[in-house]
Amino acid sequence: MSSVDPSAGIAKQKSLASQIFDELYNKTFDGVGVTRASYGEGEQIARDLLEHWAKKLGLVVEGDAAGNLYMTLLGQSKEAPPIVIGSHIDSVAQGGNFDGAAGIISGLVACVGLLEEGIKLPQDVRVMGIRAEESAWFGVSYIGSRAALGTLPKDALDNAKRSDTGVSLAEHMLRAGCNPDALRAGEIHLPPSSLKAYLEVHIEQGPVLESTNLPVGIVTGIRGNRRLPSAKCNGEYSHCGGVPRSYRKDAVLATVDLLSHLDAIWDDCEKNGKDFAFTVGKLFTDTEWHAMTKIPGAVEFSLDMRSLDGDFIEAMTERVYEIAASIEKRRGVKFELGKFTKAEPGPMDNEIKSAMRLGANSLGIPHMEIASGASHDAAAFAAAGVPTQMLFVRNANGSHNPDEAMEISDFMEATRLLAWWLSNQK
Amino acid sequence: MSSVDPSAGIAKQKSLASQIFDELYNKTFDGVGVTRASYGEGEQIARDLLEHWAKKLGLVVEGDAAGNLYMTLLGQSKEAPPIVIGSHIDSVAQGGNFDGAAGIISGLVACVGLLEEGIKLPQDVRVMGIRAEESAWFGVSYIGSRAALGTLPKDALDNAKRSDTGVSLAEHMLRAGCNPDALRAGEIHLPPSSLKAYLEVHIEQGPVLESTNLPVGIVTGIRGNRRLPSAKCNGEYSHCGGVPRSYRKDAVLATVDLLSHLDAIWDDCEKNGKDFAFTVGKLFTDTEWHAMTKIPGAVEFSLDMRSLDGDFIEAMTERVYEIAASIEKRRGVKFELGKFTKAEPGPMDNEIKSAMRLGANSLGIPHMEIASGASHDAAAFAAAGVPTQMLFVRNANGSHNPDEAMEISDFMEATRLLAWWLSNQK
Repeated sequence: MSSVDPSAGIAKQKSLASQIFDELYNKTFDGVGVTRASYGEGEQIARDLLEHWAKKLGLVVEGDAAGNLYMTLLGQSKEAPPIVIGSHIDSVAQGGNFDGAAGIISGLVACVGLLEEGIKLPQDVRVMGIRAEESAWFGVSYIGSRAALGTLPKDALDNAKRSDTGVSLAEHMLRAGCNPDALRAGEIHLPPSSLKAYLEVHIEQGPVLESTNLPVGIVTGIRGNRRLPSAKCNGEYSHCGGVPRSYRKDAVLATVDLLSHLDAIWDDCEKNGKDFAFTVGKLFTDTEWHAMTKIPGAVEFSLDMRSLDGDFIEAMTERVYEIAASIEKRRGVKFELGKFTKAEPGPMDNEIKSAMRLGANSLGIPHMEIASGASHDAAAFAAAGVPTQMLFVRNANGSHNPDEAMEISDFMEATRLLAWWLSNQK
Repeated sequence: MSSVDPSAGIAKQKSLASQIFDELYNKTFDGVGVTRASYGEGEQIARDLLEHWAKKLGLVVEGDAAGNLYMTLLGQSKEAPPIVIGSHIDSVAQGGNFDGAAGIISGLVACVGLLEEGIKLPQDVRVMGIRAEESAWFGVSYIGSRAALGTLPKDALDNAKRSDTGVSLAEHMLRAGCNPDALRAGEIHLPPSSLKAYLEVHIEQGPVLESTNLPVGIVTGIRGNRRLPSAKCNGEYSHCGGVPRSYRKDAVLATVDLLSHLDAIWDDCEKNGKDFAFTVGKLFTDTEWHAMTKIPGAVEFSLDMRSLDGDFIEAMTERVYEIAASIEKRRGVKFELGKFTKAEPGPMDNEIKSAMRLGANSLGIPHMEIASGASHDAAAFAAAGVPTQMLFVRNANGSHNPDEAMEISDFMEATRLLAWWLSNQK
């Protein structure tokens, strides 16, 4: 079976891609990196720039109540369920130029390549510039995508406040010209069942593609997570000179015991090919009370556990409580772990994944399959039941920092694969 | 061999002991606990009160260049090497009434008991109220005792600053009417070789006597220590979603690894009867950088290791460096441990310890042998070569806090044992 190959049309768009990235960078540079706050100035500037380019390139532009931007390449039929290609417009403060933007620009470039090659799809392709994905701003993830899909909890509109302003999401939406009242009233711009698929190109936020020297990753799934934002271990402060081991209630050693158990479990998972990771980003004794010669009476820490396997990650929450309970008995401490927050894994669509594998091989694009540890709008689409697939682009220096380093040539390879997949839609 | 028993004379001093303790408490109460800052107001008040009582009780009073107070019960000969009984006058801020003061008052009460019984010793007994033992004030231990023994490093006079005032030790000494210039010129009030023995009664700072229901402990030795006041582990911050285990440089898990190794060693020591303890009083990620979803790139911590065995504790410092080095290789982090500060163990005198054991049995005083995990002036005397022995008195709620709880009846038992030992000197 021969496939349509849009490579020639895509190859011609390399300087276009560079130009859009450069303009985006220059217009949202904050002196250190780029800042595109959710429903803030930088996000608006980026949105307007993307709209300008979409019109210039011949796409049909519209918006929705949450301020998302849709740039549509018309297909043969308005009735065929459309394909959405998207990613987020916003960035963290002093972030990089590619996290989010790459996915939107990839969609635009793919569409232009198809136009160039005269390939007309059966269905519309809607390139979506999504608002407010970064949870750093409102403490809530996937605001724009979930608002469009109708899965954003309504109370977030008034309860979520932006971390830098303290102002509510609804108020920020109003200031950005959006319509939170329509969302309250139940407006759903993208009913999930009306969509054929959601595709998202994103820079890899880790070092795997970089270190294996591969430009493109086909994502196998988005890890779910279980989090304890503010767990505590309470022991008893006392003079470290006087208290023998069996009398101590040492909150540091009890916490070390817990974390060292989790570390051993992780090590086992690695050996047995079970997808798991955990991170204790915050860990601290109490600066008002702690001292070198005092047995530590309190420790606070965060815990973030992730896995592609929803059952496993749920079972791990029980393991954590069990291990903590056994340590409490042995060490005379008391853990206040709190309740785990939950985000289920976002599965990728097996059919699209297979097609992408086929496409990458047929186009000669070096690639690997890779789990997404980080969260993405794709998880919101997958959770809503939309067949979803992500592609990663090689990127050095991680993300959420000004040093993100994606090569345009790698970006063009992922875009070529995306365009190939589109070109071969029935 | 029958021994002299001063019990009757000691028993009569119980209300005297209570009265001195009460006056001391009332005059140095700070609203929460007692505060007797080294070379500060509370210490001076306590010193003057002790002098007043010593004179009233018929002891000979003198001072020295460092402001220590000597209250002497004259013996048969001025030439016989004197026995020193002492402890420190100062306290931590908002401390308890007994830590330090108990040892001086025990010496006073023992002397009064001997006078009462008409027991005249071959040698002088010098009850010593020692200045500035608590390192919380000047960051230097045993200032008064080491100044008297000639073992205080001279540079401490100008380099050590009091934590609350920032003013130098020498200046504080001057303000308290002492003579730092005489110390600089090499004056030694208590040449170590001129002393027969040093005895110190002190409240236990841990829960062992309390929980074993014994009033008195015969100290087997004072633990030496090795400390890292400010050790660091440097890894690499990155987004926890994107980075697989083998690529992480996780400073928290590396530190957990190190501490969990030390904890296993401690556990082994307990099983094999090797005296050892360690405390990580401070442990913290960097509040400016840490976040729940960020792999932690830096951790800072303190380490205090103690043992009665000087060779073992020294060997442990090498173990710490070795374990850290092996973790660095496995986990891609870099430890900056710094250099260990050192304090050697203070051995107790075997002959005096045997005599105390004999005395406790002969007097029917329930007791146990117990290591001192905390530091005491006795360590300075032992280090200077003076035959040294400590006795602990049962005490609830630890020390260095207003809730120290020593029963006067327990204190009287330790004092009776001390007086017994004195009474049987040749």
